Amino acid sequence: MKRYADMASAELKELHDKLQQEYDQFAAKGLDLNMARGKPGSEQLALSMPMLDILTSSSDCTAEDGTDCRNYGVLAGLPEARRLMAEMLGCKPNQVIVCGNASLNIEYDLVARFELEGAAGQTPWCKLDTVKFLCPAPGYDRHFRICEHFGIEMIPVQMGEDGPDMDAIEKLVADDPAIKGIWCVPQYSNPTGATYSRETVQRLAALKTAAPDFRIFWDNAYCVHDIYPDDEARRDRVDNIIDACEQAGNPDRVFEFCSTSKITFPGAGISAVAASESNISWLLESMGPQTIGYDKLNQLRHVEFLRDAAGIQEHMAKHAQFLRPRFEAVLTRLENDLGDTGIATWTRPHGGYFISFEGPEGTAKEIVARAAQAGVKLTGAGATWPYGKDPHDSNIRIAPSYPSLEDLELAAQLFTICVRLVAIEKLLA
Amino acid sequence: MKRYADMASAELKELHDKLQQEYDQFAAKGLDLNMARGKPGSEQLALSMPMLDILTSSSDCTAEDGTDCRNYGVLAGLPEARRLMAEMLGCKPNQVIVCGNASLNIEYDLVARFELEGAAGQTPWCKLDTVKFLCPAPGYDRHFRICEHFGIEMIPVQMGEDGPDMDAIEKLVADDPAIKGIWCVPQYSNPTGATYSRETVQRLAALKTAAPDFRIFWDNAYCVHDIYPDDEARRDRVDNIIDACEQAGNPDRVFEFCSTSKITFPGAGISAVAASESNISWLLESMGPQTIGYDKLNQLRHVEFLRDAAGIQEHMAKHAQFLRPRFEAVLTRLENDLGDTGIATWTRPHGGYFISFEGPEGTAKEIVARAAQAGVKLTGAGATWPYGKDPHDSNIRIAPSYPSLEDLELAAQLFTICVRLVAIEKLLA
Repeated sequence: MKRYADMASAELKELHDKLQQEYDQFAAKGLDLNMARGKPGSEQLALSMPMLDILTSSSDCTAEDGTDCRNYGVLAGLPEARRLMAEMLGCKPNQVIVCGNASLNIEYDLVARFELEGAAGQTPWCKLDTVKFLCPAPGYDRHFRICEHFGIEMIPVQMGEDGPDMDAIEKLVADDPAIKGIWCVPQYSNPTGATYSRETVQRLAALKTAAPDFRIFWDNAYCVHDIYPDDEARRDRVDNIIDACEQAGNPDRVFEFCSTSKITFPGAGISAVAASESNISWLLESMGPQTIGYDKLNQLRHVEFLRDAAGIQEHMAKHAQFLRPRFEAVLTRLENDLGDTGIATWTRPHGGYFISFEGPEGTAKEIVARAAQAGVKLTGAGATWPYGKDPHDSNIRIAPSYPSLEDLELAAQLFTICVRLVAIEKLLA
Repeated sequence: MKRYADMASAELKELHDKLQQEYDQFAAKGLDLNMARGKPGSEQLALSMPMLDILTSSSDCTAEDGTDCRNYGVLAGLPEARRLMAEMLGCKPNQVIVCGNASLNIEYDLVARFELEGAAGQTPWCKLDTVKFLCPAPGYDRHFRICEHFGIEMIPVQMGEDGPDMDAIEKLVADDPAIKGIWCVPQYSNPTGATYSRETVQRLAALKTAAPDFRIFWDNAYCVHDIYPDDEARRDRVDNIIDACEQAGNPDRVFEFCSTSKITFPGAGISAVAASESNISWLLESMGPQTIGYDKLNQLRHVEFLRDAAGIQEHMAKHAQFLRPRFEAVLTRLENDLGDTGIATWTRPHGGYFISFEGPEGTAKEIVARAAQAGVKLTGAGATWPYGKDPHDSNIRIAPSYPSLEDLELAAQLFTICVRLVAIEKLLA
């Protein structure tokens, strides 16, 4: 295979004709495939079915401290559920609150709390003219949507292999007191799969910020989501940010989030927030008027089913068996079709749910549109950047988990056809 | 029995001595009884146990529209769950969003939305110097706590047998644009058990308010919670407020809330919010950044278990069998011990979870303290009024549901002893 940039126009045109034929054949099949969102597939969902009828008798519904989980109460979550989630995050149970079915909900609520109540005794954000957040990009569209909803100005920061560009971040936060927070997916990042390095974690914890109420939103969504659980060299683990912040003298700077959405059931899991004990006290105080407590039966189901860190690891290895061939199918297709063309790069993650793809500048929207026309839905181009605006129009998030392996292979095949078509058109233009 | 006011001092003193002996005997027993909160008792919780293992196979987890309830999505709730909750409230399924385990959470979130986003295109409440809510009192302490949390000024309005004092409300809202809302528990009200009359509902719907963004928070928590389900004369049904508001030309004025907390499990039920279709559109838009969707498996469990309005009615009749004797035990005790004394009045509700008790002015705190010292916990005096301040220090909320019948009879006995002791002390002072 040649680099496209080294190919003559005639050669490129010939290739384009051939690819266009392949594309037309695909389009004629009337496919309806989806590589858009990070939804677990049906085989993965089946793994957690034993959890559903794990509680049957009244005595099953009693927590270890005697709490009847069917009734009201226990705002911070069951002790055993706090322990389970703490084990998963590598923090202490009293640094954890276990909530409902979505960590996104906790994240949104926390931003709303800071808007209305303020952080660290400072002015509530809703009383300020401008509030800004740093948004490592490409990043998670739903984080950006929370900021957009609250009118928080988003400043993109380039993501790299070790996390976001820390030089840029240090400079930005030192000068601008309106910068109040940063969104991080620190391990198997959405969408690049990168894991923040030790240095990145330490620099974030030690940041000298003009804002005394600067907060890190640490969405550790993929904390145990390895694709190669048995291969030490391909198993990432991000450092404990809560400890790092404490050691740096900024114990209240960070709130960490996780859930079992991609461990048990996306729609019916449990979520957790972890932070310093003083942050947890404040949070419980703030949550008190909002709810009497989250679904403790579901917390108990999860504890019974997953048991402990070892149980989670064992269970996640089963997920990996379904995810690994899917990631590898896409990666192999990308390598085979685009490997030496010089028109694209992509990530090879060790975990998480996504592959981040970079095509030629100014082509992502067109590639996504072309794929859609032939029956393959991809995440909207731009979604991985604040305001949906990718400055290079080059990033596409690929989500291999949901389709069957057969469908995924078809979808990936069509994808590289679209990439090549659009890239050639750009070279010829 | 004589009216205490007609008794001579010596006679009162003699009675006091006798009651004090009875009190001391109780105190010596070292009881630990609780009539404080409206928690269902264990026999009630047992009624819904079949719901817990109603979903076992993967095919059980599929909604009627084919949605896999284990996976992400469906922000408004499952179609069949919306239909169930709509049947319960007597509104249309597309006027309903089904949420998580607590209607309190929806209520809090809705106030937070108005604080941050505003209502009816008006200024967000957090940008205003003063926001006020009308609080029919005695009322529900957790409603008042939401206002207090957000710094919303509470104006108490006296509750009567047909609902709050509408003359006072009409006057207040006509003049003051800072009055943005009212909390209502319109059927089997917490704590009085009163149900708003047709006239009250119509006057609320038709209110001429200085604030264009005035909102009714209609917490229909006890919409199907009859104590005498088979006795037409003792089965209250409040009018449909959504229809009334529409007919009065104020379709977007009201948000209605309910849950299955006191139908299935308080900690693991489902909740719903109902409103005009345009309010529902706005709400879904506003909720979009907050969550991908609530726990659909739990929604499906509820639909499978309760089925429809008839199923709910049948199930609630079973709850009534446990609640009725408890209410009657307390009411009989009150009647026997205080009936002709002239020192107290109380409500005789047809549903809900509470009896509202009015002792002599300036005695409620002391009665509650005296009962606590002898081992019976009551709802804190004042809790039924905004800021915990009962202007007459006379109201006590009695919650008969949680203790066993035997314990409840003891607790009620002690309660009337405390009432009589404190009342006599006051007469003699």
